[in-house]
Amino acid sequence: MNTTIERTKAVQPDYAILPIFSQRFSPYAFSSKQVNTEDLRACFEAARWAMSSYNEQPWRYLIARAENQEEFDKIVSCLWDANQAWAKKAPVLALGFYKKSFSQNDKPNKAAPHDLGAASAFLTVEATQRGLYVHQMIGVDPDKVREQFDIPEDFEPHTAMAIGYLGSLEDLQALPDGYADRDRAERSRKSQDEILFSGQFGKAASL
Amino acid sequence: MNTTIERTKAVQPDYAILPIFSQRFSPYAFSSKQVNTEDLRACFEAARWAMSSYNEQPWRYLIARAENQEEFDKIVSCLWDANQAWAKKAPVLALGFYKKSFSQNDKPNKAAPHDLGAASAFLTVEATQRGLYVHQMIGVDPDKVREQFDIPEDFEPHTAMAIGYLGSLEDLQALPDGYADRDRAERSRKSQDEILFSGQFGKAASL
Repeated sequence: MNTTIERTKAVQPDYAILPIFSQRFSPYAFSSKQVNTEDLRACFEAARWAMSSYNEQPWRYLIARAENQEEFDKIVSCLWDANQAWAKKAPVLALGFYKKSFSQNDKPNKAAPHDLGAASAFLTVEATQRGLYVHQMIGVDPDKVREQFDIPEDFEPHTAMAIGYLGSLEDLQALPDGYADRDRAERSRKSQDEILFSGQFGKAASL
Repeated sequence: MNTTIERTKAVQPDYAILPIFSQRFSPYAFSSKQVNTEDLRACFEAARWAMSSYNEQPWRYLIARAENQEEFDKIVSCLWDANQAWAKKAPVLALGFYKKSFSQNDKPNKAAPHDLGAASAFLTVEATQRGLYVHQMIGVDPDKVREQFDIPEDFEPHTAMAIGYLGSLEDLQALPDGYADRDRAERSRKSQDEILFSGQFGKAASL
């Protein structure tokens, strides 16, 4: 039985887009299969080339593989309990940070969280292209991150992500109650008319 | 003379990634060539399928084509002067917003700017795949956006983007002083060792 095929959540988009976007989803159940270094490096290479305000590149990542148990457990401990329950079984975890001020003049960089989001999205596209899955989390305790790691004042702990191969149905069933349903729930989105406007805010775009 | 080829800024990444990421850049000079509706819809369809905290999908966009002059000029007027100078020549402009609170419980959504960044990054990937270029801007005046458009209190005007085909060298030379140099400057990024850490913050990752 090919459980991977059973676990697809590919959607039929309203307009033709790269398959990466319709196939991608954020699983709760990951395989314990290791991710090779080349694939991981390529994911962060895609993040590296993201666009940012004044090319500040405010993104930083702190990564650990499950086999480096001490480092990995420190990252796990920074996640909210609801995320720890499934994320601790992923083969790779990373924390996401953004630099709060511009390096050039120390002024606040209001684009920084946005630009971290863009970099992590590029990472996710490259990961998907390589058969990997990414589950991003905002459920991170910044104070705990600062307690566990020595974080310079100007950097904000903001996100975490799990990276790995899709877990089997068995991996899914091994999760605590509730996660299997969430993992298998159909992907849904607002319609374009609800997010893309023209003329005035809230009015479906006429293109 | 094929001016498009002369205008490539493709980089040689340190690790093999999708060509989209090495070819993409944020031009100042756009062609006046119109973007067809199908391509625009596909770009926002990619944004639509981005991941977000609790699947809130906090992103909203307000778009105008240059030929809808009144709507277009209203968006131009919301940009900082330094962006108006080049962005007013793009065929399509859009403002980016995020919803500040979760729809489910009205609690603040701290992931909202990050998730807008992710959606706009997906949009940029789809655009690049279709031969389009996107230049994102944080240089938007939120008060001016609220003055020009009736924006609900819970939505924050945050970004803008120009979308279109790459301008020719002639389009580039028609821009005010300084933009041509910025447009043609080589793309550069911090090394992976400066953005990807393991063990402790600031220590180049060992993978």
